[in-house]
Amino acid sequence: MTIQTNVRGKALKVLDPNYEQKVRDSFNHQGVMQVHNGELVHVGLGTVEVHVPFSKGLAQQHGFFHGGMVAMVADTASGFATYTVLHPDEECLSAEFKINFLYPANGEKLIGRGGIIKVGKSLVVAEATVSVVRDGEEIDCAFMVHTLARTRHVKSGAVNKPNK
Amino acid sequence: MTIQTNVRGKALKVLDPNYEQKVRDSFNHQGVMQVHNGELVHVGLGTVEVHVPFSKGLAQQHGFFHGGMVAMVADTASGFATYTVLHPDEECLSAEFKINFLYPANGEKLIGRGGIIKVGKSLVVAEATVSVVRDGEEIDCAFMVHTLARTRHVKSGAVNKPNK
Amino acid sequence: MTIQTNVRGKALKVLDPNYEQKVRDSFNHQGVMQVHNGELVHVGLGTVEVHVPFSKGLAQQHGFFHGGMVAMVADTASGFATYTVLHPDEECLSAEFKINFLYPANGEKLIGRGGIIKVGKSLVVAEATVSVVRDGEEIDCAFMVHTLARTRHVKSGAVNKPNK
Amino acid sequence: MTIQTNVRGKALKVLDPNYEQKVRDSFNHQGVMQVHNGELVHVGLGTVEVHVPFSKGLAQQHGFFHGGMVAMVADTASGFATYTVLHPDEECLSAEFKINFLYPANGEKLIGRGGIIKVGKSLVVAEATVSVVRDGEEIDCAFMVHTLARTRHVKSGAVNKPNK
Repeated sequence: MTIQTNVRGKALKVLDPNYEQKVRDSFNHQGVMQVHNGELVHVGLGTVEVHVPFSKGLAQQHGFFHGGMVAMVADTASGFATYTVLHPDEECLSAEFKINFLYPANGEKLIGRGGIIKVGKSLVVAEATVSVVRDGEEIDCAFMVHTLARTRHVKSGAVNKPNK
Repeated sequence: MTIQTNVRGKALKVLDPNYEQKVRDSFNHQGVMQVHNGELVHVGLGTVEVHVPFSKGLAQQHGFFHGGMVAMVADTASGFATYTVLHPDEECLSAEFKINFLYPANGEKLIGRGGIIKVGKSLVVAEATVSVVRDGEEIDCAFMVHTLARTRHVKSGAVNKPNK
Repeated sequence: MTIQTNVRGKALKVLDPNYEQKVRDSFNHQGVMQVHNGELVHVGLGTVEVHVPFSKGLAQQHGFFHGGMVAMVADTASGFATYTVLHPDEECLSAEFKINFLYPANGEKLIGRGGIIKVGKSLVVAEATVSVVRDGEEIDCAFMVHTLARTRHVKSGAVNKPNK
Repeated sequence: MTIQTNVRGKALKVLDPNYEQKVRDSFNHQGVMQVHNGELVHVGLGTVEVHVPFSKGLAQQHGFFHGGMVAMVADTASGFATYTVLHPDEECLSAEFKINFLYPANGEKLIGRGGIIKVGKSLVVAEATVSVVRDGEEIDCAFMVHTLARTRHVKSGAVNKPNK
């Protein structure tokens, strides 16, 4: 399953020349990726690849990746792909996504690849595919369609402070 | 946001009188719930409530719950709600779900409530709502529509053995 | 299947006291409703009911209502429900919708009932249920989740002029 | 927007060598396509192209194609694409679909192109793109993800007899 960024035929514009660095910074601030050893393998304009290895904290009752975790990896990939095509003072909030599961996510690693379908004035439509690596082979297991709203940067002062 | 199990007007049938115990057993085998301190607060016929407290492993870059983790909690709630209405020799696999995000999931705890829309011969349509608890107040943040396929039990011998 | 406007617990605000009339005017300008004998049975704040009788132009190969036509009725109901909660100078454009089919739409009439889940600053999340009337009985056949973008009025000068 | 049948990398199997004829027969029995002058432009294994010209019965209040009618064309394309990959004694029922709208469907004709993402044992996941032709130019306006259940043939004796 090859992800096809720009498959819909419009060239993407660079609105923020610093897009790779800002994506890497934001990724590094995601607790979910730190705790679960996520890796940001590739960042391009409108395209992002994320790897997350299997661990108990991602598992459902059969020891496969939990479907919600497959969605989390897809969401991360399409969300960061969206972040690459925004202005420096913008970020994006998920309005909704839909994910179809094609095969059980039974393997050692999830690979999420995000791409862009359309950059609109107020919304971006993105997509992601997720594959699972088992015995060295990559198997398609899910794909997502993701609608995100373009917004001004959320203030970092709003950070959650649990367990204080 | 009150979850409305059976809102669509059909009475659910008890196909497995042991439904509560099997849901609790399965829940206890989910690594994702153990590691993230998930709690199975209620199990009824066609209705399940799951709580998951905030922790770093669930956080996005602003310290809110990651959207993918909101989906994971919803998926767990609607998936287990589905499990309560199946025959003893059945389980369910997610075919697809769609989630709409209503408010940022900024708070101390997520509450997922799952319910059943339709039990079909080969598919079940379930729903879940997710709210976030902030300063003691519960705020609706997302809802999911979830389609699951009814299948024979997946063999537990298929368990993933990573990092052996 | 009772439609549950405001089920999510927030009171809707009247932003346009003239909401019923504008919905009726817009409905009367929809060629699709004129040609297919659609009827606007009820308009309330955040709630709309539309009836469309069976005819050949709505049928699939077995003589049931075509799934796309079930979606069209749902879309009309949730779209007009959304229109009732907007400012006088606004209208709404569909960003996306998802529909689940519960039973074959085999009958004499479709009934679509639209409601509102959330009115956001730039997006509205609406819902619709569709039932089919067969031999005088109403049978649930589908439900929709619908995301719409709030926009300024589209100029009526943009009207399509086919077959001139 | 080029539709990418088999983009997910599995070769489709011919389960019914007569697939083109059966699709054409079924298409010709759809009242919706007869009444609205739909044309089945191409049928291949796992790929179908449908054209529907603009007419009043397809229009919303601005004279564009109604969003529900865009969905109807997409549904037809992905549904018939699915029909080409089934056994002779099977047909398919829509479980659900999701459609994203990219641009207003303002033009003379809709073109729906359907393709296949996965053929599973009980479900098929299909996709469709819809473009609108305006002044001779083709503009992408929507795409759909469609989940269908494989079933035995519905008896044709179940045909709706309205207005008898």
